[in-house]
Amino acid sequence: MKIGFIGLGRMGAAMARNLLRAHHEVAVYNRSRDKAEALAAEGAHVAASPADACRDTEAVFTMLADDHAVEQVVFGAEGIAAALAPDAIHVSCSTISTALARRLTAEHSSREQGYLSSPVFGRPEAAESKKLLVLPAGPAGMVDRCRPLFDVIGRQTFVVGPDPWQANAVKLCGNFMIASMLETFSEAFATLRKAEVAAQSFLEIMTALFGSPVYANYGALIANRNFDDAGFALRLGLKDVRLVLAVAEECAAPMPLASVIRDQFLAAMAHGQADLDWSSISQVSARAAALQP
Amino acid sequence: MKIGFIGLGRMGAAMARNLLRAHHEVAVYNRSRDKAEALAAEGAHVAASPADACRDTEAVFTMLADDHAVEQVVFGAEGIAAALAPDAIHVSCSTISTALARRLTAEHSSREQGYLSSPVFGRPEAAESKKLLVLPAGPAGMVDRCRPLFDVIGRQTFVVGPDPWQANAVKLCGNFMIASMLETFSEAFATLRKAEVAAQSFLEIMTALFGSPVYANYGALIANRNFDDAGFALRLGLKDVRLVLAVAEECAAPMPLASVIRDQFLAAMAHGQADLDWSSISQVSARAAALQP
Amino acid sequence: MKIGFIGLGRMGAAMARNLLRAHHEVAVYNRSRDKAEALAAEGAHVAASPADACRDTEAVFTMLADDHAVEQVVFGAEGIAAALAPDAIHVSCSTISTALARRLTAEHSSREQGYLSSPVFGRPEAAESKKLLVLPAGPAGMVDRCRPLFDVIGRQTFVVGPDPWQANAVKLCGNFMIASMLETFSEAFATLRKAEVAAQSFLEIMTALFGSPVYANYGALIANRNFDDAGFALRLGLKDVRLVLAVAEECAAPMPLASVIRDQFLAAMAHGQADLDWSSISQVSARAAALQP
Amino acid sequence: MKIGFIGLGRMGAAMARNLLRAHHEVAVYNRSRDKAEALAAEGAHVAASPADACRDTEAVFTMLADDHAVEQVVFGAEGIAAALAPDAIHVSCSTISTALARRLTAEHSSREQGYLSSPVFGRPEAAESKKLLVLPAGPAGMVDRCRPLFDVIGRQTFVVGPDPWQANAVKLCGNFMIASMLETFSEAFATLRKAEVAAQSFLEIMTALFGSPVYANYGALIANRNFDDAGFALRLGLKDVRLVLAVAEECAAPMPLASVIRDQFLAAMAHGQADLDWSSISQVSARAAALQP
Repeated sequence: MKIGFIGLGRMGAAMARNLLRAHHEVAVYNRSRDKAEALAAEGAHVAASPADACRDTEAVFTMLADDHAVEQVVFGAEGIAAALAPDAIHVSCSTISTALARRLTAEHSSREQGYLSSPVFGRPEAAESKKLLVLPAGPAGMVDRCRPLFDVIGRQTFVVGPDPWQANAVKLCGNFMIASMLETFSEAFATLRKAEVAAQSFLEIMTALFGSPVYANYGALIANRNFDDAGFALRLGLKDVRLVLAVAEECAAPMPLASVIRDQFLAAMAHGQADLDWSSISQVSARAAALQP
Repeated sequence: MKIGFIGLGRMGAAMARNLLRAHHEVAVYNRSRDKAEALAAEGAHVAASPADACRDTEAVFTMLADDHAVEQVVFGAEGIAAALAPDAIHVSCSTISTALARRLTAEHSSREQGYLSSPVFGRPEAAESKKLLVLPAGPAGMVDRCRPLFDVIGRQTFVVGPDPWQANAVKLCGNFMIASMLETFSEAFATLRKAEVAAQSFLEIMTALFGSPVYANYGALIANRNFDDAGFALRLGLKDVRLVLAVAEECAAPMPLASVIRDQFLAAMAHGQADLDWSSISQVSARAAALQP
Repeated sequence: MKIGFIGLGRMGAAMARNLLRAHHEVAVYNRSRDKAEALAAEGAHVAASPADACRDTEAVFTMLADDHAVEQVVFGAEGIAAALAPDAIHVSCSTISTALARRLTAEHSSREQGYLSSPVFGRPEAAESKKLLVLPAGPAGMVDRCRPLFDVIGRQTFVVGPDPWQANAVKLCGNFMIASMLETFSEAFATLRKAEVAAQSFLEIMTALFGSPVYANYGALIANRNFDDAGFALRLGLKDVRLVLAVAEECAAPMPLASVIRDQFLAAMAHGQADLDWSSISQVSARAAALQP
Repeated sequence: MKIGFIGLGRMGAAMARNLLRAHHEVAVYNRSRDKAEALAAEGAHVAASPADACRDTEAVFTMLADDHAVEQVVFGAEGIAAALAPDAIHVSCSTISTALARRLTAEHSSREQGYLSSPVFGRPEAAESKKLLVLPAGPAGMVDRCRPLFDVIGRQTFVVGPDPWQANAVKLCGNFMIASMLETFSEAFATLRKAEVAAQSFLEIMTALFGSPVYANYGALIANRNFDDAGFALRLGLKDVRLVLAVAEECAAPMPLASVIRDQFLAAMAHGQADLDWSSISQVSARAAALQP
């Protein structure tokens, strides 16, 4: 297939590379052009604008930081909305708000273009090794057309439902599940540190109890207070908790744990942790307990 | 070794049976005698009282429901405290308060008896198949003497620290980790139900994301709203959250998620869920969102 | 002075009337024209549009429901922004977001128009009897020019600071103070109802303890479960809590009580209470305790 | 009447003095005898023990710090329980748990003695000027017998109900109402400090809005960060929030704001604020927002 790919951060670059390796024809665009050119050696066409990346494609992927970036790329000058062919599909993999997903659905539809939300779970290493979980939602026919593409970027594809925004709701709830695990670990570690239990000891027991690599990896980050190499920056974690609370408000479903987590992220922001890994939320519980963070 | 075992609920009976199978000499006691007699066929000596179960033993295990039951068995008439030989060890596996653990430490010590807290993680099936996680804490010499016993009831032993109450703190924090996962799932499922995402779909994605049997099993209970067969009754879950909050207070370490969870358990109690499985905490989020629980 | 007044709900109509009674020349505009015409008998000029209400005025007041309504009136067709004379002042009394207040400040400034945020405290009866608290913020010179107008609509004027959005932050924090009192009352009443203490008894004691008419009035609404005559609709209360949480996020200052209150308002929304008085938040605590709401 | 009075802290001494001034015959007891002797000049008989203070009295008041102190004075050596005459009444004014109130009810009843819970609202100055609010609960006949005594220590008497513990529940809920106001103020002040609004300005507006001396006084303590002269120590505030949460648990009524407040008090304890005024809870919000507390 002939496709476009916009947004070549660590996640996007890895996904685009896997599409290239599966012999798809890929036009790539990134705001800072050097990231696009790095993919030229692997066969990518370097596009000059989002619109250029859409030319003659059946599908264009976007993998961007937030709502604002997606709005720029879709509705801005030389944007996707004006350039994408009728029947071609915009596949949005970014973690964006359900509100923007609904707006994209409506705007593309009014132009007779297709739209799928297809967020993914996985850190950059998972993207590189084709181990993402891919969560498309949208009309079944569109999902079927894109399934071969999903298969080469992830290890498993879960079709969430007929409305694109449902996939964004699931992605946000999933990130809330992880954030809640981080905060839970944080509170337990702080209490046990004051009880003079070794962090390593609690980590081993929880790893054995839950049998989950997610617990093992994040638990180790917190136990070792190793936050500088941000796999996922705390300010993005705050953004996602804000967005899941927006879903909760749309649905009129209270999420009290999510509310607590938001407040902890705010305290972390106040203490200058915006660019640390989001597991550094543990410093908030430590400080509240008068421990050295 | 010659040992006593007091408290033959599903957990205790399975543990005592594994001690018998490892060719230890075990005197068993249970308040309702029939549960003790069920073990006689497997070689147990049926004791007439806690004191009787202590006679000539090197160690006596207790596996009871709560602080009150332990206090009765230790300090009541025909109790352990008055009967245990000097140097023999009381191994308390129950999920009790850190305050009681400290009192047991002091009282046994004043009688020149040994005391270990050794709580366990695992549901009854895990106890039967020797797959418990065993968490002893106390003086190293005592832990070493009991290690062969721990090895035949669990799959792994984690020595928590030199003070027995530390193991109780870890056990309570571990149960808080599970309770928090339950509440997190509950909030996400409620929101997604209002977003018309199939519960099964979210469950599969979270199972793939966390790769944890604990998430798979409890997530399925909540997704299927299957709460009548209580593996762990909600009122016991409330007790454990109350106890972890007591640890938080002793240590002066705020645990805001634990506080939210306690409130959700209270709402569940108000709605008559005391004897349902603790995963039925999900009905609280459902009700708050005006969903059919 | 010659002034315009836009937004003639119960609050706005009362304020406009008091300006007329103080012999100011007032052009009034309301989306549904009948409310404007009701003021014609008292000497108001009925304007055909927001722009028309600005014609030749020194100041134009807006008293509208929310951000959206203000944006329409200012930036929409026949809006204030395009019509207000240089040096004339837009006095925004609505309870809006700090973000919109900053945008209004910038937009009016770029047109050489003045802008003040001047939210008010008080229910409609207070507006009628000139007993509002008026909270202007903005450049001191503009505040001084408008002070005679503030004096005829309120009993006291508090100048909050040099930046208009500061007044909005104060107004939102004040509404949070009231909302928190409502939720606190709600929890206490629910617990005491289960303790079989008469609501009236607790209400009298709290009225004597706090000596506050706000406690007396809202406490009585909750004690008597009298929510149909909405002095302030619950959905507007939710809006204001959402906005104060947005301020908290801008300032990176966690507000955990506000977060809890937001969740309680969401539960109320889920149960169809959007148009009841916001004191009906008490039904949420009642339901959680399995009481008849 | 001939009465005893046990517990002569600032509150108790003022109450005993007002009973003396109303020409009652009062035997006083305090653990440190000097406080009792200070009242001898005003006509009090100095008792040598709680039992001695009960001799030939119709009623004995206790005004003590907590459950433990009351238990000592009632059930300890030379305690009230053993000494009080049949039909004489123990009037407990201390802020104690509902559980202890129920135990006192049962124990006194089994000895044919009377028991009333009669907690009070008011700071020491209010006690001195007979301006307390007095909240008796218990059998109507006993309340009637003691009413003349209540009338000389307070400005108003509110009969709460037929069961003594109900008055303790009301007192704890009232303290929760105040604690919640403190935390609400704390969050608003922290946010507004980051918004560069003067604390004094917000304080004046809230004083005008609520029209309550309680808001004026506590608001000023927080605005001026004046916590060293503890009218009510933070550790006692924590005790009372813990006790109201215990009532919530007995009644199965969630109190999420109370839970948040407990966590904030714990953070304050961790930072060494146990003996500061409880309004210093505001330092917790300040620290979380990275402000200088």
